[in-house]
Amino acid sequence: MRVTRMLIPTLREVPAEADAISHQLLLRAGMVRRVAAGVYSLLPLGNRVVKKIEKIVREEMERAGGTELLLPIIQPAEVWHESGRWNVYGPELFRLQDRHGRDFCLGPTHEELITTLFRQEIKSYRQLPLLLYQIQNKYRDERRPRFGLLRGREFIMKDLYSFDRDEEGLDISYRKMYEAYTRVFSRCGLVFRVVEADTGAIGGTNSHEFMVLADTGEEELVFCSLCDYAANTEKAPCRPQGEQEEEARPLQLVATPAARTVDDLASYLGVDARKILKSLFFDADGEPVVVLVRGDRSVNETKVKNFLLANSLEIADEVEILNRYGVPMGFAGPVGLREKMPVKILGDEEVRALSNAVAGANRVDYHYLNVNPGRDFDVDVYGDFRTAQEGDPCPLCGAPLQVCRGIEVGHIFKLGTKYSEALKATIIDEKGNEVPVVMGCYGIGITRTMAAAVEQKHDQDGIIWPVAIAPYEVVLMAVNQGDALHARYAEELYREFLQAGIDVIYDDRLERPGVKFKDADLIGYPARVVIGKKMVSEGLLEIKWRETGETVLKKRSEAVEYLRQKLSAMRSREGE
Amino acid sequence: MRVTRMLIPTLREVPAEADAISHQLLLRAGMVRRVAAGVYSLLPLGNRVVKKIEKIVREEMERAGGTELLLPIIQPAEVWHESGRWNVYGPELFRLQDRHGRDFCLGPTHEELITTLFRQEIKSYRQLPLLLYQIQNKYRDERRPRFGLLRGREFIMKDLYSFDRDEEGLDISYRKMYEAYTRVFSRCGLVFRVVEADTGAIGGTNSHEFMVLADTGEEELVFCSLCDYAANTEKAPCRPQGEQEEEARPLQLVATPAARTVDDLASYLGVDARKILKSLFFDADGEPVVVLVRGDRSVNETKVKNFLLANSLEIADEVEILNRYGVPMGFAGPVGLREKMPVKILGDEEVRALSNAVAGANRVDYHYLNVNPGRDFDVDVYGDFRTAQEGDPCPLCGAPLQVCRGIEVGHIFKLGTKYSEALKATIIDEKGNEVPVVMGCYGIGITRTMAAAVEQKHDQDGIIWPVAIAPYEVVLMAVNQGDALHARYAEELYREFLQAGIDVIYDDRLERPGVKFKDADLIGYPARVVIGKKMVSEGLLEIKWRETGETVLKKRSEAVEYLRQKLSAMRSREGE
Repeated sequence: MRVTRMLIPTLREVPAEADAISHQLLLRAGMVRRVAAGVYSLLPLGNRVVKKIEKIVREEMERAGGTELLLPIIQPAEVWHESGRWNVYGPELFRLQDRHGRDFCLGPTHEELITTLFRQEIKSYRQLPLLLYQIQNKYRDERRPRFGLLRGREFIMKDLYSFDRDEEGLDISYRKMYEAYTRVFSRCGLVFRVVEADTGAIGGTNSHEFMVLADTGEEELVFCSLCDYAANTEKAPCRPQGEQEEEARPLQLVATPAARTVDDLASYLGVDARKILKSLFFDADGEPVVVLVRGDRSVNETKVKNFLLANSLEIADEVEILNRYGVPMGFAGPVGLREKMPVKILGDEEVRALSNAVAGANRVDYHYLNVNPGRDFDVDVYGDFRTAQEGDPCPLCGAPLQVCRGIEVGHIFKLGTKYSEALKATIIDEKGNEVPVVMGCYGIGITRTMAAAVEQKHDQDGIIWPVAIAPYEVVLMAVNQGDALHARYAEELYREFLQAGIDVIYDDRLERPGVKFKDADLIGYPARVVIGKKMVSEGLLEIKWRETGETVLKKRSEAVEYLRQKLSAMRSREGE
Repeated sequence: MRVTRMLIPTLREVPAEADAISHQLLLRAGMVRRVAAGVYSLLPLGNRVVKKIEKIVREEMERAGGTELLLPIIQPAEVWHESGRWNVYGPELFRLQDRHGRDFCLGPTHEELITTLFRQEIKSYRQLPLLLYQIQNKYRDERRPRFGLLRGREFIMKDLYSFDRDEEGLDISYRKMYEAYTRVFSRCGLVFRVVEADTGAIGGTNSHEFMVLADTGEEELVFCSLCDYAANTEKAPCRPQGEQEEEARPLQLVATPAARTVDDLASYLGVDARKILKSLFFDADGEPVVVLVRGDRSVNETKVKNFLLANSLEIADEVEILNRYGVPMGFAGPVGLREKMPVKILGDEEVRALSNAVAGANRVDYHYLNVNPGRDFDVDVYGDFRTAQEGDPCPLCGAPLQVCRGIEVGHIFKLGTKYSEALKATIIDEKGNEVPVVMGCYGIGITRTMAAAVEQKHDQDGIIWPVAIAPYEVVLMAVNQGDALHARYAEELYREFLQAGIDVIYDDRLERPGVKFKDADLIGYPARVVIGKKMVSEGLLEIKWRETGETVLKKRSEAVEYLRQKLSAMRSREGE
């Protein structure tokens, strides 16, 4: 393709609207444009990246036994009423009415439609397993769309649904998808980790997230330095650690003027944050709950919420704490707390192991020293209520955990019979019994994968696309397109590359070389081939590799083979 | 692909909901399912046909210099207000609001978005021509969705927009698209005609429709038996014909009891319908208009409406005619009509050539004989107000026209500056002047093309797919899948076909051969390869061709080559 036939509106300035690196670079590289909040046009280069990702996804879904279909985007409300989600889904569901006043929504996901399709068409276990997938736009009316393609309101997803006769079948389908996803993101040339994940609103019993690693990622994850373990931080279990080691000393009230934070207190008293007991106040479905963790720890709200089986868990603010408990924030503690008000107290396992700790005295500017669990306070239950941190022992092997950030690009769930029961999608099993079909669902954010790739692979000059998903693998240009000889060489070489099957774009604009070089770096084509004076004088092309900056001179006759081999080697390396 | 891994729910009965052949057969062949009125799921086989059509369309758009992008489906109301279409578009536009109450619509077409994108990004004539296209879902909230995929509310379209510096540039882009469309429908293996079309609501100055011929088509078209001329009937111009030939005889009132229709009258009076003058009453934007045509002709409402520059034209009913003019329907005529009420009278050119004609006397059960235009009545204007018929002279060469029916699958328009002026999409031309860019738009109904193919190519047993867009080109099956030997041959052959690159589906179900044969015919795979007794005894495969019914026996070693050559020859023949 020729640049003059394309629409590639690159920008030199960072657009004010862009709040993430990928958003900035995709705008600057002329790959996307904003149409409304969270709604984007994919310009020709962005569309090419998306189509390449889609192709990889299709190939791996087919290899895993998946069959493609295409369900509607507009879905009638009736099936959402049947599943019970019409009222539950809330304002994230785009809703509309047709001219006759009938309710529809724009599909954020397709469990309802695929399950009712299954219900109509499939009767017997003999027709299973069945893996059906589609690639299409999805809709989610985010309250605050942001980060460009990372959190949009219209985005492209691949969603696959598996149907099996029983849990063993589901395990097999799930494993197949796990492996297919691993191949997809490997082939896309991305560094990623698979983590155990919380199942959230979709429900189900088991779930993994595929995370593209990037410092700018929205999600935090932990992974083991030794074994394969990795998990979303909110999900990673923490091991009980240690026992009370010191002999208990007498409880002692001390003045700690204005020492409201753990840091203040640690430095004022000259103690380690690990010896301080932190008390956090929550409202769980309207009930007060206090959670105790060590001063160097954070409460894991997901774990607390799951433990309490609560629908909502909100941290209490200063006013609320004072009004409800008569306790000044920053000086709260478990000693004598129940005398002020009946309250449920959850203690993290590590708190049980504290001896002679520091805790708030529930009185402004005062703390207790030598607080000992059991002797000075009790809790309703000890459990795993903290968030895993760098250096914590791996729950599988005990080696130290490491922490990194990532972007969720894939998510696989075991749904079980949640939807098949609600929507009465049953099969007749071997024994002639009618049983609900066992389902899984598996999503890949296609446009999000594009953005995540940019978050992971860029430098100060622009994007560095993996070969497999680059808009074009090679950009070809003449230093001086206005020079008839340069232009002729470029035209010839362009045709030669096309005939050799090289995925090439030809920058045939009458622009200064500096402009073309900057655009090439910004857009991030893996290889740049330049026709300059050396071509005229010595028959040599300059080939520069975007990732390493390496520049080589090659004879024209060797260029095609060199490019082909090197690009193929890069793709293989990326795909590992 | 194996049938047992697919979802191909064929039906033996014709579904009650289906009102067109293509709708019936696509449902019966397990290719589509209805989700709501005018909203369909594409099941795996239907999805494959669509993807094959999309691939052909993409290749031809790229060959013509088009560049693919992807605009959003949800479009903010602002740009529709700017173009003035938000209020004009009416109830066919699906509208919705986001959580903040902002108005959006689901794109029925993308002139607004592409033109504002152009406005933002393109400044100079040097960047033109530009041909941008996309393939995606479109939405139109039809009052009465029907005929399955032929008139749905959600459907897949390819839309391309051309941008040129002037009318000459547009002519070139338009010609390119005309040729690309011709190649697309040829390659799809469809019999079609290109006709001049009315531009309708989208506007613009020039337009052609690509019509797949089918007896069941919604549109009527005429084409010349000698030259290349073809047109939508509503658009085809009619030549003025003949002159008054007889000497005028005296006007004579005759009783014609109960002869209300042209046929009644012709047989009662023993005259040719061509000698009868037909008077039709309309309401054009609230004004009364009478149109006169010969008794053997139909009024062309499109021509009348365009001539009057009317927004609406409604034919008047019996009660209205009686109340407004005091004229009994069936006995109306132009003689003395203006004395009853001031009315605009339009006469078709052929009416001027009548002599001694029959016309209603505006009195129940009476007509006049020997009515002569000019002497007995006058009209406001004579013009081309009739619809072309079989046998009429071609407006280009005069040879007799033929009539057929078709389904519109493609439509190309010269938009000119309609949208660029409304949305201020300008360029700087060679002389440094800011001028509106000159646009064209070009649509192909992808899902509609699938349905049109079925309307054109089917028999009593099912669909007969052209090779190029068949869901699979070859279906392979064993007569007795339960027989270990048959099954082994089938498995081997399946792998052999796949390796040879044959587009094959393997019907590996444990079903009776009759069921598999019926399904193969219904679905319409071009070739059916059967492993039966002859395979075991003599090493011969039975290959049956769906289109011709021809059955041949081939040695296993020859099968791949035979299939490949024959399928390739069929594709070439189709593509002519």
